[in-house]
Amino acid sequence: MPVTCPLPALSTDIITLGHGSGGLLTHRLLETGVFDILRNDWLDQQHDGASLELNGRVAFSTDSYVIDPLFFPGGDIGELAVNGTVNDLAMCGAAARYLSLSFIIEEGLPVADLRRIISSIHKAAGLAQVHIVTGDTKVVERGKGDKIFINTSGIGSIHPQAAIHHNRIAAGDVLILSGNIAAHGTAIMSIRKGLEFETSIRSDTAPLGAMVIRLLDRWGSRLKFLRDPTRGGLASVLNEIAGLTRLGFQIAEERIPVEEEVEAACEMLGLDPLYVANEGLFLAVVQQEAAEGFLESLRGEEQGRHAAIIGEVTSEYGGKVILKSRIGGRRVVGFLIGEQLPRIC
Amino acid sequence: MPVTCPLPALSTDIITLGHGSGGLLTHRLLETGVFDILRNDWLDQQHDGASLELNGRVAFSTDSYVIDPLFFPGGDIGELAVNGTVNDLAMCGAAARYLSLSFIIEEGLPVADLRRIISSIHKAAGLAQVHIVTGDTKVVERGKGDKIFINTSGIGSIHPQAAIHHNRIAAGDVLILSGNIAAHGTAIMSIRKGLEFETSIRSDTAPLGAMVIRLLDRWGSRLKFLRDPTRGGLASVLNEIAGLTRLGFQIAEERIPVEEEVEAACEMLGLDPLYVANEGLFLAVVQQEAAEGFLESLRGEEQGRHAAIIGEVTSEYGGKVILKSRIGGRRVVGFLIGEQLPRIC
Repeated sequence: MPVTCPLPALSTDIITLGHGSGGLLTHRLLETGVFDILRNDWLDQQHDGASLELNGRVAFSTDSYVIDPLFFPGGDIGELAVNGTVNDLAMCGAAARYLSLSFIIEEGLPVADLRRIISSIHKAAGLAQVHIVTGDTKVVERGKGDKIFINTSGIGSIHPQAAIHHNRIAAGDVLILSGNIAAHGTAIMSIRKGLEFETSIRSDTAPLGAMVIRLLDRWGSRLKFLRDPTRGGLASVLNEIAGLTRLGFQIAEERIPVEEEVEAACEMLGLDPLYVANEGLFLAVVQQEAAEGFLESLRGEEQGRHAAIIGEVTSEYGGKVILKSRIGGRRVVGFLIGEQLPRIC
Repeated sequence: MPVTCPLPALSTDIITLGHGSGGLLTHRLLETGVFDILRNDWLDQQHDGASLELNGRVAFSTDSYVIDPLFFPGGDIGELAVNGTVNDLAMCGAAARYLSLSFIIEEGLPVADLRRIISSIHKAAGLAQVHIVTGDTKVVERGKGDKIFINTSGIGSIHPQAAIHHNRIAAGDVLILSGNIAAHGTAIMSIRKGLEFETSIRSDTAPLGAMVIRLLDRWGSRLKFLRDPTRGGLASVLNEIAGLTRLGFQIAEERIPVEEEVEAACEMLGLDPLYVANEGLFLAVVQQEAAEGFLESLRGEEQGRHAAIIGEVTSEYGGKVILKSRIGGRRVVGFLIGEQLPRIC
């Protein structure tokens, strides 16, 4: 039977299963204004997708964010969901232009938390100069999700001079990190249940797109490869590239920039900073002749002021990552075994 | 301390938290071959995003799929995740070209289930002629998710003659359904725990893109609006459009195509077919003069053989949906109140 009875009064405090029904409550969730801050011509159309004008080479990327806790020192899941995908596009040499936004909400999430997250998303999108043009909301029963998961997918315009591909990496290329490692993962771990301790460490979550585009303006194809060391940290990213290229990646422990407080916290937590996630950092593989100039450009950027050359690509040690330790020894740095930091992004 | 001990043997039967770490296990999950069937040049690059060449008007859409159960008569979550987003693009008048694919897996999912889902995704993508070019896998702890959630986002090329926008809808336009309603939701409900009953009803999940493109080739801008009545069913979609246009939408109960077995099952389950989700169906708003011809084209398609004119747009009843019942009465069909069918897509 069709339901034509008078509308029941709805709680606007808590997300319920009905908010994901595609019926009135979803509509009403819209009408509570929780999405209002995101409004633009694309979203106002309330259609199944957004219509965009695109020409030339674009990058396309996706990530689901399941970080726990939702709010952490230096950011929250909303900011992370924007910056993470913006940065994935930046790693393709692209300036992010459009994002999709999809929520999977667990029944019982306070609407105030959703509002706070959406406000963060809006702010981060503004900062990264990216438009949120299409979206989706699903609600699952209590105990079938965890507060909120967010997927963002992004489309970006690839810089005309960008030629970023692992098959361009060659022996002699230089490895440059854009800043200090391990802040994000350490900040999260420091507030996880049972591990809380006093610290001022904040996640490094930040959009990298604008800086990458300026570097491409100046250095073009001499920048051969980019990757942001998120889950699994620097060590995992280096191992992935080593695996793809079958070249050796040699890094020097003393050259890897890490804040003192982060290093101390990692020691306390039993974490190796090389494996800890970052959210506002990239590893660049740069042509040898351009390396010093590239580093200088990078250090001229606010986000790149701690940048450092950390090593080089070599034809020895094919497929392996070799660390020269502070005391002069050499050892293989492997992939992360198991899970050091679950739900870190 | 870095982990350089010999690699432990891994179970390949069950997804563990480590599979989502971004470290070895994720890498190993790749290496188990579970993703092999999806391999192509884009995914083989294993980069943070895919590089694509696009020119002109494109549609961009996203959806997260949380359907329960994962496998159901007529399909599974993998097939649904491809078709659903392909269809959202089709509703924008676009032929799907590229999809992203993101998994949120609950620890403990049998790898065999993941393999079956990925195989379904591959088959559905082939059928819809869309390429899966970028992806992501996250794993959450047991009890913090529900087996698997899938997000797909899609990019499609908009047909040059497409002019699909709710602001083009006018009084006198004709409402055409491409087929029978309510099969998907009824199929899911018929196998939900505690509700199992003997039936041969199957989900109607199917890609609509190719048919829509052929209709646009022939009818161009005389096709004014398209929407697929998924969550919330036909009634909700009509209410949304009525709300956006402030026009009246009048439909005749006797004209709405529904299979007899589905109608009987809905009666048994206490469901109104008007509110039940569909996954291979669209509602078209067509210029009056073109309506009969459009219907004929539609009926010439295998997927459109049950198509029917179900009503018209009117300047009366602004913002409302009016149903002319079989016995001649008229009543307002409202939005769905609450949740008739949670986790239906």
